[in-house]
Amino acid sequence: MKAALISDFLLSRIERPEGRADTSRTSPLNVQVYRLTREAILSGVFEPGLRLPSSRDLAKELRVSRNTILYAYEQLFAEGYLETRAGSGTFVADTVPDQITPPQSKPTESFSTSHGLSGRGRKLVASPSESYSKWGAFRTGAPDVTEFPKKVWMRLQNKVWSRSDPELLTYAPRGGHMPLREEIAHYLQISRSVNCDAGQVIITSGTQQSIDLIMKLMGRGGDTVWLEDPAYWGSRSMLSTFDLDVVPVPVDEQGMQIQTQSDRPPRFIFVTPSHQYPLGTVMSLIRRRELLQYAARNQAWIVEDDYDSEFRYGTRPLASLQGLDEHGSVLYMGTFSKTMFPGLRIGFLVVPKALSEQFAMGLSELYRGGQVFNQAILTEFMRGGHFGSHVRRMRMLYSERLNVLHMAIGKHFGDYASIIDGEAGLHLTLGLPNHCNDRAISEQAKVEGIMCRPLSAYYANPDHGRRGLLLGYSCVPTEQIEPAFDRLARIIKRHW
Amino acid sequence: MKAALISDFLLSRIERPEGRADTSRTSPLNVQVYRLTREAILSGVFEPGLRLPSSRDLAKELRVSRNTILYAYEQLFAEGYLETRAGSGTFVADTVPDQITPPQSKPTESFSTSHGLSGRGRKLVASPSESYSKWGAFRTGAPDVTEFPKKVWMRLQNKVWSRSDPELLTYAPRGGHMPLREEIAHYLQISRSVNCDAGQVIITSGTQQSIDLIMKLMGRGGDTVWLEDPAYWGSRSMLSTFDLDVVPVPVDEQGMQIQTQSDRPPRFIFVTPSHQYPLGTVMSLIRRRELLQYAARNQAWIVEDDYDSEFRYGTRPLASLQGLDEHGSVLYMGTFSKTMFPGLRIGFLVVPKALSEQFAMGLSELYRGGQVFNQAILTEFMRGGHFGSHVRRMRMLYSERLNVLHMAIGKHFGDYASIIDGEAGLHLTLGLPNHCNDRAISEQAKVEGIMCRPLSAYYANPDHGRRGLLLGYSCVPTEQIEPAFDRLARIIKRHW
Repeated sequence: MKAALISDFLLSRIERPEGRADTSRTSPLNVQVYRLTREAILSGVFEPGLRLPSSRDLAKELRVSRNTILYAYEQLFAEGYLETRAGSGTFVADTVPDQITPPQSKPTESFSTSHGLSGRGRKLVASPSESYSKWGAFRTGAPDVTEFPKKVWMRLQNKVWSRSDPELLTYAPRGGHMPLREEIAHYLQISRSVNCDAGQVIITSGTQQSIDLIMKLMGRGGDTVWLEDPAYWGSRSMLSTFDLDVVPVPVDEQGMQIQTQSDRPPRFIFVTPSHQYPLGTVMSLIRRRELLQYAARNQAWIVEDDYDSEFRYGTRPLASLQGLDEHGSVLYMGTFSKTMFPGLRIGFLVVPKALSEQFAMGLSELYRGGQVFNQAILTEFMRGGHFGSHVRRMRMLYSERLNVLHMAIGKHFGDYASIIDGEAGLHLTLGLPNHCNDRAISEQAKVEGIMCRPLSAYYANPDHGRRGLLLGYSCVPTEQIEPAFDRLARIIKRHW
Repeated sequence: MKAALISDFLLSRIERPEGRADTSRTSPLNVQVYRLTREAILSGVFEPGLRLPSSRDLAKELRVSRNTILYAYEQLFAEGYLETRAGSGTFVADTVPDQITPPQSKPTESFSTSHGLSGRGRKLVASPSESYSKWGAFRTGAPDVTEFPKKVWMRLQNKVWSRSDPELLTYAPRGGHMPLREEIAHYLQISRSVNCDAGQVIITSGTQQSIDLIMKLMGRGGDTVWLEDPAYWGSRSMLSTFDLDVVPVPVDEQGMQIQTQSDRPPRFIFVTPSHQYPLGTVMSLIRRRELLQYAARNQAWIVEDDYDSEFRYGTRPLASLQGLDEHGSVLYMGTFSKTMFPGLRIGFLVVPKALSEQFAMGLSELYRGGQVFNQAILTEFMRGGHFGSHVRRMRMLYSERLNVLHMAIGKHFGDYASIIDGEAGLHLTLGLPNHCNDRAISEQAKVEGIMCRPLSAYYANPDHGRRGLLLGYSCVPTEQIEPAFDRLARIIKRHW
């Protein structure tokens, strides 16, 4: 190509934004000039030795600022595409070797799809369980974040950020911010009868990371894991990424039915004893002791997921399984997602003393935790009594919403309604007759803007799962509960 | 036991804090009363049918508040240890079954240690690589967080938190906060010539989670992974938790030496082309094209870790490998840990278009991301131009500190100093003669309060690694650099 044609070549190819609002759709001009020139060099359109116009001239001809051209030239110079010769200007480098000419074939579009996700990965994203909306009727498992005392939080936030402590902004210390670990230990001792000191509390970014950390540090290829059936999809998803034999274990009204006759005892037993997810069963005291004894005898680890025990309406919550354990065989998981707000992403693990130092180290080695500033704000929030009073206030609010939902259900279904769990947590489970297709109801409700998860989807084999709908009431404004259920009831009745 | 002795039994066992400051060492009184009573019931000291004193009487005798006793009683009642009989008081329940009596043997202390961490987990925590201090001479890889414009951040933080948008506090949308993904895409196009749109940008909690996500979604058991030798310990640690065959590949002055003769091509190739970690090599253009061609031919995925390319002093940074790629075979990783502050824990992945939806879904399924409020503050910070000006200011500051360190090294070692990398990033690598034990120097420096990582420790086999010291200068106040190096030089000279 002749030097005089360079500006024409570029001018014809530059895409200019059509207006201010359009800038996001086209690349910035300097990037375009850089890319077009680079491609022209690589494809041989601009040959080695070709002299480029001065940045001033080219800018004028392309009607762009000189900085735009300077940026592109400097970048190409740094990458070896251009070279300068003393006193005579800028040239396409002689040393762009022939062998680096890109293949002239079209990019292999199929590359990503054929060699991309593993079978495991494909399965994981094939039917995502995460809700498509974060808010409204009847999303499960989300607190009412509009009721969160933001002003208090902002005040404490400003207080913490005003400290001149560099450690707040760097990586977290092993195991997390010690004052928060102390607050959590204290809280768990009192309200959950957990037997622990602050050193056993490991701050994670939530239950998912807690499970990940347990499996990364303790899991061995092929380990058997007992998981309640039905179970929380988040635990199932995380476990599915490991090389484990996950065995679904049925739940009755006393909790997990321990398979004492099993010829291959598990290495891990995942349970939700305070409030079975999603059925709401409370594991009985006898079953708890059986489980602890079975675990001790078979050297199995119990992973206790105590995700929402703060919210029981009426009876007091049962103490934790961990507090009953005498063999250091329980790994206890908790979260602030329900009591504070999910986006905070602070959860914790309580591990046996003998493992605490190793877990703290493993967390740092693997994740290099941070967010100390948020951990420090949460510490102040707990110390100041705001956590306790917020939980109490929400318990009353959710209890009221639960009542409204109960009444709405009663209005439509009366004695036919079978409410599987309606005493605790952030959702209730409405049982449906076996001939009802809960997944179809859920899909149709979605079209009308109502979320309700089908109970059967929580089972390892949804076809054999109990039918029902999980109805979250915690993040629905009270006055919207009845109208929303009215619409849902019409859909349910079509399938009844 | 006689009912009259119950209060004596408890009184003799309660541990009272010795003063206000001591409260953390003993459990709260209500927890103690609860636990002591429960243990007495389980061990048979308090027999079934035993009548307990009224809460009022017991409180008086134990000299505690009545609420303390009420708490303990309610808890024990809820757990089935106590029962009430109409009109006659509170009794130890008859139904505490014999079979739940705990084994009288001592807790098996050996349980946790013998059946705890897997071999992999033990290896991971056996020699932790995470620095014991987050700050000061000569910690590597940490920016100077005291220079971070906290006031600007706090202003934006208050602005974002004042919005009445519940989505800020709930779980993150798939792939992260879209406005931030747009800002990052725009930034990467301009400054790193990355070829992407916002949909390809996946917000993670840092490089560790980025690697974890790639491997959880794409990794297959036994996959071969090429990792530069030497390499960042964080990548090595994370990869070690998967079932992978990690092959260390030597690095020369042009970058990774691609093993084209390898009979088993890798499925993943991890590289730091802009600034090899920790040697600082920049991968040459020829080597980049060879690598891209090799990857395309062998259907391998290149994972490009572009962790600190913002900090080059003198020459411009080279464009990203991703921008040169024509086959969609590069997964690009970036982080805000160096440009903003490590504790922010925001990083990102740029994935090929064909994988972007799957990665966004996989992230939500596995981690249920949150921190949208911080993502929104960062968006405002970038939009307002604060990010660009902060990076420029830090580049000047670090460049000055690098000069001071250069001079200090020159003063002590003159022509004998071999500085392997001194052009970019947040640390320089001081090469040492092969007979120097860099690990011993590092240990001795630690005793004197100076951190310096031994270069050999970054190699797959430290015994065959090049000897040297990584000296981070970015988080050392300028005036402390020379005195700190003076002390370090004395230690080095003892080993020279």
